[in-house]
Amino acid sequence: MSLAYPDDSLALHTDAYQLSMMQTYFMKGIHERKAVYEMYFRKMPFKNGYAVFAGLERLVNFLSDLHFSESDLAYLRSTGEFNEEFLDYLKDWRFKGTVRMPHEGDIVFNNEPIVQVEATVFDAQLIETPLLNIVNYQTLIATKASRIRSVVGNQTLMEFGSRRAQEMDAAIWGTRAAYIGGFNATSNVRAGKLFGIPISGTHAHSLVQVYRNDYDAFKAYAETHHDVVFLVDTYDTLRSGVPAAIRVAKEMGDKINFIGVRIDSGDLAYVSKGVRKMLDEAGFKDASIVASNDLDESTIKSLKFQDAKIDTWGIGTKLITAYDQAALGGVYKVVSIEDENGNMTDTIKISGTAEKISTPGQKQVWRITRNSDGKSQGDYVALWDENPQNLPNGLYMFHPSYTYLNKTVVDYTARPVLQDVFVNGELVYDLPALDDVREYAKRHIDSLYSEYRRDLNPQEYPVDLSQAAWDHKVNLIKATREYVDHIDQTEE
Amino acid sequence: MSLAYPDDSLALHTDAYQLSMMQTYFMKGIHERKAVYEMYFRKMPFKNGYAVFAGLERLVNFLSDLHFSESDLAYLRSTGEFNEEFLDYLKDWRFKGTVRMPHEGDIVFNNEPIVQVEATVFDAQLIETPLLNIVNYQTLIATKASRIRSVVGNQTLMEFGSRRAQEMDAAIWGTRAAYIGGFNATSNVRAGKLFGIPISGTHAHSLVQVYRNDYDAFKAYAETHHDVVFLVDTYDTLRSGVPAAIRVAKEMGDKINFIGVRIDSGDLAYVSKGVRKMLDEAGFKDASIVASNDLDESTIKSLKFQDAKIDTWGIGTKLITAYDQAALGGVYKVVSIEDENGNMTDTIKISGTAEKISTPGQKQVWRITRNSDGKSQGDYVALWDENPQNLPNGLYMFHPSYTYLNKTVVDYTARPVLQDVFVNGELVYDLPALDDVREYAKRHIDSLYSEYRRDLNPQEYPVDLSQAAWDHKVNLIKATREYVDHIDQTEE
Repeated sequence: MSLAYPDDSLALHTDAYQLSMMQTYFMKGIHERKAVYEMYFRKMPFKNGYAVFAGLERLVNFLSDLHFSESDLAYLRSTGEFNEEFLDYLKDWRFKGTVRMPHEGDIVFNNEPIVQVEATVFDAQLIETPLLNIVNYQTLIATKASRIRSVVGNQTLMEFGSRRAQEMDAAIWGTRAAYIGGFNATSNVRAGKLFGIPISGTHAHSLVQVYRNDYDAFKAYAETHHDVVFLVDTYDTLRSGVPAAIRVAKEMGDKINFIGVRIDSGDLAYVSKGVRKMLDEAGFKDASIVASNDLDESTIKSLKFQDAKIDTWGIGTKLITAYDQAALGGVYKVVSIEDENGNMTDTIKISGTAEKISTPGQKQVWRITRNSDGKSQGDYVALWDENPQNLPNGLYMFHPSYTYLNKTVVDYTARPVLQDVFVNGELVYDLPALDDVREYAKRHIDSLYSEYRRDLNPQEYPVDLSQAAWDHKVNLIKATREYVDHIDQTEE
Repeated sequence: MSLAYPDDSLALHTDAYQLSMMQTYFMKGIHERKAVYEMYFRKMPFKNGYAVFAGLERLVNFLSDLHFSESDLAYLRSTGEFNEEFLDYLKDWRFKGTVRMPHEGDIVFNNEPIVQVEATVFDAQLIETPLLNIVNYQTLIATKASRIRSVVGNQTLMEFGSRRAQEMDAAIWGTRAAYIGGFNATSNVRAGKLFGIPISGTHAHSLVQVYRNDYDAFKAYAETHHDVVFLVDTYDTLRSGVPAAIRVAKEMGDKINFIGVRIDSGDLAYVSKGVRKMLDEAGFKDASIVASNDLDESTIKSLKFQDAKIDTWGIGTKLITAYDQAALGGVYKVVSIEDENGNMTDTIKISGTAEKISTPGQKQVWRITRNSDGKSQGDYVALWDENPQNLPNGLYMFHPSYTYLNKTVVDYTARPVLQDVFVNGELVYDLPALDDVREYAKRHIDSLYSEYRRDLNPQEYPVDLSQAAWDHKVNLIKATREYVDHIDQTEE
C-alpha cells in the first residue's frame, strides 16, 4: 500500500500510547512481567441474540508476520519520543505471547472474553489496537450477515457492497465475514481469489446504456457469456427490460443458461410480481428474480410480508458497513498482572457506570449444552482454574446482575470456548477451510433455541459468572473503593 | 496482505460484473469505444451544507500501479467465466484514461460530478468499484471531521478511532481524511509514518492497573517521557486520579512538560469542572483537560452548552465509522458514449424516483464566487463545451427542480472545479503536501457563507444546471419515454 516505504510493516498499526507505555515498561525494567488481557464487548450488536465470532484468520496472519521494519524504527526515532535502547529492543522483537480465541464462526455473547492474550505486558499492549480493529469489524459483519440469513431461509444471498465499504480492507474482510455469517457469494473478485468465495455478477445499467437499448445489450451479453442474469430496470422494467430479456432468452435457447433477471430500483414488491407473471407466462418458471437496492433484514422481511416474488438477494451498503450499528465496541482490558514478587494479581477497572466495570481474573468461557437435545443452556464464565465439567450435583447458574434468576443444569456438557491459537508465540492452531468455518457457524447458531435466534426482541441468552468469579469481582470492587477512600484521606 | 499470492495486485478489487461487461465489449469489438463516466452523490452526508472531497491521492496511487498480475489472471481463468483472448488482452493492459477531480480538500455538493473519467468503455468500467470505494469513504470522513471541527473553534482535535475502524485501511485513510477535514493529530502511528500526521497519545488505563495505583503509574510514566498527559479516571477521577497527577507534576517540576490530564468516562460536564478547579488551585492553570468517550459534534455541542471545561477532544468511533451515516452513497454513471459511427452520444439512466435520474452529457462544475467578498454564490454545472466565465450580462442561475428560484450573478469569478489528474493514462497532477490539502480545505470552507456552514439545518447551497444542460436532460427524458412507448407497442 505504501509507495514510499517498500519495507512498510503493520507493526505501527497501533495507537501511539501503546508504544509510549511499552517504553515506560521497558525503561522501568518491568516489560517482561506477565499479564492477561481479555477482549469483550458490552452490548449485543443490533440487539441480536448472539454474535458470530470472526477475524481469527486475519489475526493469525497479522501476528505471524509482526515485526518492526527499518523504516518503522526510523520513523519512531524521528518523532523524538523514543530512546535508543527501546528502539534497539524493538529491532529483534517478535510476539511471544499465548492467544486464545473461539473457533472462527463460533457464537459469542456480550460480557464474556472472546479473545484472551497471556503475554508479557509489553507484547500484550502492542497488539491491543490491531486485535480490536480486526475482531470488532469482522465479528460485527458476520453477525449482521447472520441476521440477514435468518430472514431469507435457504434463498441465495450475494454480497454487493465493495463500492460502499469503508475502504479496501473492509470490502475484502467484510465479505469474508459475511460468507461466514451465511452469505453464498460476493461480487468482489479479489475476495474470490484470496478466499475462494464464489463470485457473482453479470452486468450493470451501463451495458444497456452503451448499447442504448435493452435488447441489443442483452443479446450482446448472451452471445459472450454462458450464465446470464439480465438487469431489466435501466429504462422501464415491465415495458422494456423484461420483454427484451424474454426475447433474448427465447432466441438464444440452449446456447445460454438463462438464470433470471435483476431489479435494482423501483417498488420491488409491486414490480417483482409483474416480472414473475411475465416470466411464467413466457414459460420461464424456473428463472430467478434477483433484487438489490439498499436491502437489509428489515426491508427483506417487509418484502416477504408483501409476498414479493424475489428469489435471490443482493445486499450492499447496509451489510458491509453494518449501517444501523457501524461498530461493535469491543474493548481489551488487563485482568491479571504479575506483581513485583512474581505473583499474578487480578485487576479491575472501576467506573461510575456499572456495566463498564471489568471482571477481574483470567477466565474461561464454558458453553453449557443439555445432553438431551444438544441445545445451549447458557455460557458459564469461570476463573481459569475452575472446571465445571461433570459436576455430580449439576451446575448452578445465576444471572450476574439479577442473582435471584438462577437454575441448576443437570446432564449437561461443558465445552471450553477459548482455544489455544498461539502458545508462547508459536501458532498451534490449524486454520480450517473457510467453508468449514461457515458450516461451523451454521451448526452452532442452530444449536440455539429459536427464542435466541429471532432478529427482533430475542430472549437474552444467559452469560453467567461462576460463584467464584462473581465473589472475586465483588471483593475487588470493595477493595478498590477502600483503597480510594484511603488515598482520599491521606492525600496531602 | 495476501500470504498466498506474493504478486497479488489490486486489479481484482472490483465487482465481477465489471469484468463480465469488459469481456462482452472485448468480444464484440467495442472495447475501445470512448465513454465519459461521472461519479456523484445524491444526498448531502449528515445533512451537512457541504462535503469535503478526499481520496485523490489514494486513487492516484491505485491507478498508477493498476495491472493484472499472473496470479490475478490465473484466478480469472480458474473461474471458467472468461476466455483466453480476453485474458491475454488483460495481461498487458494498463489504464489509459483521463481522470478529472476537484483538488483534494475542495468542497463539493450533491448532484454534481466529483470525479469524471473519460476513457474507453473498457477502462472506465474496470475502475468504477475501486474509485467509488475510495472516494465514498474518504469524502465521508473528511466531511464528518469538518463538522466536528465546526463546533470546537480552534481547540485541538485528535483522531482516536483505530480500534473501531472498519478494518485497517479505514483506520489509515480515515485518519488522513479526518486530518484534511480539520483534525490536528492521530493516535495511529502508521498514519503518522505514512502521511506525516502528528501522532498523539500517552497512556491507557492498563498502565495504572499494571502499577495498581495512579501515583506510581504517573510517576513511572513521567520518569520515562518528557511530554505527559495523565489518564485520571481508572479508579476515581476527583479523589484519586487528579490528586496523583498534581502530586507527580509538582514532584517532577521542570523535568517534564505537564500538558494536562485526560478523562475517558463518567459525566464529562460535571467531572471536567471539578478537575479544572483542582488543577487551577494547584497552580496548573495552563494544564489542558482532554476528553474522550464516544464524542461527536452533537455531544461536544452539548458539553459546551453545559460549560464543560474541556480543551482538547479525542474522537474515535463516531468519526472513523461516520457512525450516524456510515456510507456516502456516491454512484458512477455513463453520461456519454461513442456510437457505431464514432460520434459521442449522451446517455441517461431513467428511474421512477426523480432524484435517481442521471444528468446526461459530459459536464464541468463551475464554482461561482462574487468578486466583492470572495463568497461562493453557488455551483453552475454546465455542458463540457460551455464557458460561463466573463459573461457580459452576468450569469443566470436557476434551481434545477424549482426553476422559478433564480438569480443573475454579476461581477463574479467562475472557477472550474474538475481538474485534469490523469490525461490518457499519464499522471499530470502534482500531488500537494498533506498540510497544503488541509489548508486548502479550510480556506474553501471559509469561503462559504456561515448559513451553509452550520452543522444543523444549513441553507441548501445552490447547485444549478446551465440552461443547455437542463434542456438536454429534459429532452433526453422525453426521448427515452418515447422510445419505451415505441417498444411497448412493437414488442411481439
